[in-house]
Amino acid sequence: MTIKEEVVVRAQAVHAYLEQCLRGRNIPGRLLESMEYSLLAGGKRLRPVLLLNWAELFGLQAELATPFAAGLECIHTYSLIHDDLPAMDDDDLRRGRPSNHKAFDEATAILAGDGLLTEAFTLMFSSPLPAERVLKAAACAAEAAGGSGMVGGQMLDMLYTGKGGASLEELRRMHSMKTGALIKGACTAGAILAGASEEDVSRAEHYGRSVGVAFQIVDDILDVIGDEAELGKPVGSDEEMGKSTYPSLVGLDESKRLAEEYAAEARHCLECYNGPQAEFLKKLADYIVHRIN
Amino acid sequence: MTIKEEVVVRAQAVHAYLEQCLRGRNIPGRLLESMEYSLLAGGKRLRPVLLLNWAELFGLQAELATPFAAGLECIHTYSLIHDDLPAMDDDDLRRGRPSNHKAFDEATAILAGDGLLTEAFTLMFSSPLPAERVLKAAACAAEAAGGSGMVGGQMLDMLYTGKGGASLEELRRMHSMKTGALIKGACTAGAILAGASEEDVSRAEHYGRSVGVAFQIVDDILDVIGDEAELGKPVGSDEEMGKSTYPSLVGLDESKRLAEEYAAEARHCLECYNGPQAEFLKKLADYIVHRIN
Repeated sequence: MTIKEEVVVRAQAVHAYLEQCLRGRNIPGRLLESMEYSLLAGGKRLRPVLLLNWAELFGLQAELATPFAAGLECIHTYSLIHDDLPAMDDDDLRRGRPSNHKAFDEATAILAGDGLLTEAFTLMFSSPLPAERVLKAAACAAEAAGGSGMVGGQMLDMLYTGKGGASLEELRRMHSMKTGALIKGACTAGAILAGASEEDVSRAEHYGRSVGVAFQIVDDILDVIGDEAELGKPVGSDEEMGKSTYPSLVGLDESKRLAEEYAAEARHCLECYNGPQAEFLKKLADYIVHRIN
Repeated sequence: MTIKEEVVVRAQAVHAYLEQCLRGRNIPGRLLESMEYSLLAGGKRLRPVLLLNWAELFGLQAELATPFAAGLECIHTYSLIHDDLPAMDDDDLRRGRPSNHKAFDEATAILAGDGLLTEAFTLMFSSPLPAERVLKAAACAAEAAGGSGMVGGQMLDMLYTGKGGASLEELRRMHSMKTGALIKGACTAGAILAGASEEDVSRAEHYGRSVGVAFQIVDDILDVIGDEAELGKPVGSDEEMGKSTYPSLVGLDESKRLAEEYAAEARHCLECYNGPQAEFLKKLADYIVHRIN
């Protein structure tokens, strides 16, 4: 199997779990429909895949970490719904389909996001693992998702876009919060759930930080040279909104070089580990840089 | 001290904790300002007060439950910010001041709500108590706040308002989710944090359910006969928006009688307990019915 196929197989297992995790919960019909519309829309399931592989690297069965991994995907999905709202990025399309507030309405989309963020924690708490580990991993996820992480990064994005773009230093900080924090949190939480040592957890964190930066640089690159059909959204939207990106600040070639550099740094974090999980995580760092959507 | 003064003293201790709990967290300035604008706007702090007293009733020091109680107030505050948004209830005033999206802007208000909901869990997780208890209480809070609780209740409210009002049965279900669930969750979580027995936890739950219904009926009554200056918002807004309320469905006198009945049911849950906490919680049930704001 290629790494892309391996990621797809893993993502399918997560998807199957997500398909049933909100059922039987007494959620009003329209709200459930709206939450599942976005949650089950597909996507790479990158955060759950990272979490599951870091957990497995330290000997945890993937099944035991799946509810927690699903919770992270709920957090990621809610952030996409709220980011697409008219008051935010005002995006009508997401993964090739109408965005949530277009398919439903604004109020429902806001509530679907709120609901997914809350259900994320309910899912994490249902992990069949020692309470200390679950609590520590959930604290790590909340830190990554909150005002000093993902939500704070989106705030900075709005502020920088309003003032006509960010400097490279501002762009780095914004990205490390907006997308980097949750990707890093996924790796760290996986290691924590598996009961890894502090040293191992900090290697997972370092890997996650590097992979997160690489992911974002490639996202910026794809917004310039990507294929609309593959991406499921129009290219050039960053430039149109006056957003700074890696290509606009350092050029396309330097952006590509930087992405490779961060992928190499991520691979380096895995040098002291052996076995299929370590190999998978190394290949995943490269896949993130060479993806086309 | 009157019960009102006792509530104010307790609320002040919660307020003091809330004033510093988001500081030093690396939250971007404008986002922190917006989160604190609503979090520190005052209010009765009913949910934290309920949680702290139920925890104390079963022997826990209030200080140990304060971070968790503060988390519940963050959840309550985020729900007010999002409910006030133009796409939802479109309220320009909250507690006598411009609502969050009026004082800042819509994007910031959405993010402040998202941030407060996430920080709520970070606060809960910081409780200096056994991990099993914290996890169980946090699961109870998440259940109360999510799609089958508070968020689901707001969805039903939007749907019923759109179709021109709810039946009494629909109103009951909607209220039990929208406001009842978190009030009940506060009482239950307090008992869980204190390590109370299952029987004691279910008495806390029953009390919370009754007090929650009484609270909502009185809210509906105050929207008809309340004083705008005391309430900090215009009266008659429910009727104007075509929302069903207890007074509109069963009349003012029957609404008052029902509120008294639920308060009596709440007091009844405390009959097997003695001491100042039990007395306080009994008086609190009556205070909720006789409040003027």
